[in-house]
Amino acid sequence: ELQMNLEQIEKGGYDHFMLKEIYEQPDAIKDTFRGRMLVEQGIIRMAGVDDHFEKFLQAPRIIIVACGTSWHAGLVAEYIFEEFTRIPVEVEYASEFRYRNPIIHKGDVVIAISQSGETADTMAAIKLAKGQGAFVFGVCNVVGSSISRETHAGAYTHAGPEIGVASTKAFTTQITVLTLMALKISKAKGILSKTALHRYLQEMELIPAKVEEALKSNEHIKAVAEEYKNASNFLYLGRGYNFPVALEGALKLKEISYIHAEGYPAAEMKHGPIALIDEQMPVAVIATRKGHYEKVVSNIQEIKSRKGKIIGIVTQGDTEVRGLADYVIEVPETLEALTPLLTTIPLQLLSYHIAVMLGKNVDQPRNLAKSVTVE
Amino acid sequence: ELQMNLEQIEKGGYDHFMLKEIYEQPDAIKDTFRGRMLVEQGIIRMAGVDDHFEKFLQAPRIIIVACGTSWHAGLVAEYIFEEFTRIPVEVEYASEFRYRNPIIHKGDVVIAISQSGETADTMAAIKLAKGQGAFVFGVCNVVGSSISRETHAGAYTHAGPEIGVASTKAFTTQITVLTLMALKISKAKGILSKTALHRYLQEMELIPAKVEEALKSNEHIKAVAEEYKNASNFLYLGRGYNFPVALEGALKLKEISYIHAEGYPAAEMKHGPIALIDEQMPVAVIATRKGHYEKVVSNIQEIKSRKGKIIGIVTQGDTEVRGLADYVIEVPETLEALTPLLTTIPLQLLSYHIAVMLGKNVDQPRNLAKSVTVE
Repeated sequence: ELQMNLEQIEKGGYDHFMLKEIYEQPDAIKDTFRGRMLVEQGIIRMAGVDDHFEKFLQAPRIIIVACGTSWHAGLVAEYIFEEFTRIPVEVEYASEFRYRNPIIHKGDVVIAISQSGETADTMAAIKLAKGQGAFVFGVCNVVGSSISRETHAGAYTHAGPEIGVASTKAFTTQITVLTLMALKISKAKGILSKTALHRYLQEMELIPAKVEEALKSNEHIKAVAEEYKNASNFLYLGRGYNFPVALEGALKLKEISYIHAEGYPAAEMKHGPIALIDEQMPVAVIATRKGHYEKVVSNIQEIKSRKGKIIGIVTQGDTEVRGLADYVIEVPETLEALTPLLTTIPLQLLSYHIAVMLGKNVDQPRNLAKSVTVE
Repeated sequence: ELQMNLEQIEKGGYDHFMLKEIYEQPDAIKDTFRGRMLVEQGIIRMAGVDDHFEKFLQAPRIIIVACGTSWHAGLVAEYIFEEFTRIPVEVEYASEFRYRNPIIHKGDVVIAISQSGETADTMAAIKLAKGQGAFVFGVCNVVGSSISRETHAGAYTHAGPEIGVASTKAFTTQITVLTLMALKISKAKGILSKTALHRYLQEMELIPAKVEEALKSNEHIKAVAEEYKNASNFLYLGRGYNFPVALEGALKLKEISYIHAEGYPAAEMKHGPIALIDEQMPVAVIATRKGHYEKVVSNIQEIKSRKGKIIGIVTQGDTEVRGLADYVIEVPETLEALTPLLTTIPLQLLSYHIAVMLGKNVDQPRNLAKSVTVE
C-alpha cells in the first residue's frame, strides 16, 4: 500500500506516468533549450558541440544511429540537418548498422540517440564506429549513462526521468537538441543568416507555450479516441518533417494499445497501402499549413474517395482539411522545421486515450522493456 | 467472350497474370543477365554503365530514388552497393526527395528505379536531380518509357510485360541489374577479386534454377496460406539484405489481400512492434543460414515466447528454425548477397494464395493502378 501511495505521489495527480510525461513536455523542452539559447544575441551554446565544432563544420557526412522512437527523432533530424546544414545525413537502425560493414569515411560524424543511454544495439554501433575512427556524439537523457560515457561528446536532453515505457518527452526533447545543433552549425556555415537564426530562436522560445496550447485539445482528442478505439488498424501519414512524426504516432499506438498502426510518407500510399483503405480504416494525416499543404490535401481526398476515416492534424484556424476530415485536431502555427514538436502531441494523446479505454497497461505494455539492454 | 479468350491465352494457362509472372521469374532473371555476364572471363558488360564508367567509379555518393516496390529494390541495392563498392548510398522516396531541397554534390550519381518508367514522382525527382547537375541512371522495364528517355543512361530489366498490378518479376530483375552493376564497379575498384567475382557470376548463373526450385514449394505455401488466410494482421521480419525483402513481402500482402502487413528489421521488433504479438499474429521471418542466422533465431525465440505464429523462410536442410517455427518454407542455398532473389519467391506466393482464397481481385486490386502517373 505504501508502494501504491508512493507511486501515486510520483504520478503527481495523473493516472499514468505516460500522461504525466506528455504534460511535462512544455517544461522538458524549456529545460532542454534553457541556457543554450541566447535569443537576443542570436547565439546557441552547447558545450559538447562547441568543443568539437570544427568536426561538425567539416563533416562530409553525418550518420545517425538509434532504435525505436530515437530512430524517429533521427529521421526528423535528417530533414532538419540536410535543410539547414547541407550535410548529407544517413539514419541507420543501430541493429542493422552494427552487423554490416558500414561505410565510415574520415571526418564523418556519428550521432547516437538513446533516451536511457543503455540501448545495447546503439552501444554496439558506437563501439564499431569508434573502432573505425569516427567522432561519435551522443544525445541521451540519462546523465552518466553508458552511452553518454562511451561517446566522445554529447548533449543531454533535460527531459527528467521518463518512466512510461512508451517514450514521449524524450522524443520531443531529442528533436529540440538536434534542432539547436542544426541551427548552430547552419549559422556558422553561413547558410542561416543572423536574422533568420534570430527568428528560429524566438520561435523555439514560444514552443513550450504552443505545446501547452496543443495539450488543451485533450478532451477533444478523448472524443476522437472514443470513436476509433475499436478499430483494428490505423494508418498515419505525413510528408517532409512530419513523415517521421507519422511513424512515431503509429509506433505509440502499437506500443500501448496493441492496435496495428503503420506510418507512411503520404505520397507513398498510392504505391500499395491505399489498397488497405475502406470504411473501417482510420487514417491520421498530419496536414499543417506549412509542409506541402496542398499535396497533403490531395492525399486526403484520395483516402476520402475510398471511404477511409480521416483524423486531420491541422494548423489552428484551418478550414480546408476541416471540410474533408471526420475529425480535426488543431495545433498552433509555427515555422515548418519546428512543427514536429507540436504535431507529435495530439498523436501521443490519441494513443494514450485509446489504450486507457481498451483497458491496457499504458505504462508497462506487454512484451516491452523501458530500455532494451539486450540485443 | 473473345476478350476473355484472349486474356486466357495471354495468361498462358495460369489463373492470374500475377501467378504467371511469379513463374516467369527464372526466365526473366536469365533474360536480364543474359549477354551481360561473361562468366568464364569474369566480365560484366552493361553498355549504359560502361559508357559512363568513370562517373560510377568516382561517385562520392549514390542516391537512389524510387517508389513502392522499386523503392524496396533500391534498399536491397543499398546493402549490395555499400558492401561491394564502398560508395555510401542514400535511398529516398521519390515523393519526399522532390519536395525538399535535396543535397546533390558534384559527382553524385542518382539511380532512378521504375518498372513502368512512367512513375510521376520518380520522373519529377529525376528532373530535379538533372537540374542540379547530377548524372542520372535509370533502371526501367518498359523500353522507351519516359524515364528511360529522360535519364542520361540506364539498364533495362528484361522482365517482359508485367500486367499484374502487384509487382513481382520487375522486383527480382531490378535486383539482378543492380547487383550486376555493384559487382562490376566493385571489381573495377579492386574491392572484389577476380576469383570472387567469378564465384558471384557462377552463382548468379545458377539463380534461375534455384528460383525454379523455390517455386516447387507452391503447394506447401498454399497450405500455409490456408492456415493464416483469416489473420487480420501480419508481420514480416528480416535482417541485412533480407530486411527490404521483409518490407516487400508485407507490401505484396497489403496490395492484393488487403490484410495489414508490416515489415521490420528483425531487431527493431523489441523497440515497439513486439507489443502487437499474440497468438493471433503470424510473423514471417526470413532466416536463411547466411545473414546473422543466430541473431534471427533469437528473434524467433522472442516471438515464440509471446505465442506468435512463425513462418520461417529458411535454407534447404535447416533444422534449427524448423524446430521453432509453425511452418518453414525452404529456399536453396546461395551467396548471402544473392539471397533476396530467392527469399522473395515464397513471400510472393504466400500473398498470392491468401488473396485468391479470400476471393480478391489479384491482378487488379482495389484502389491501385499499375503505374502511378499522377503524384
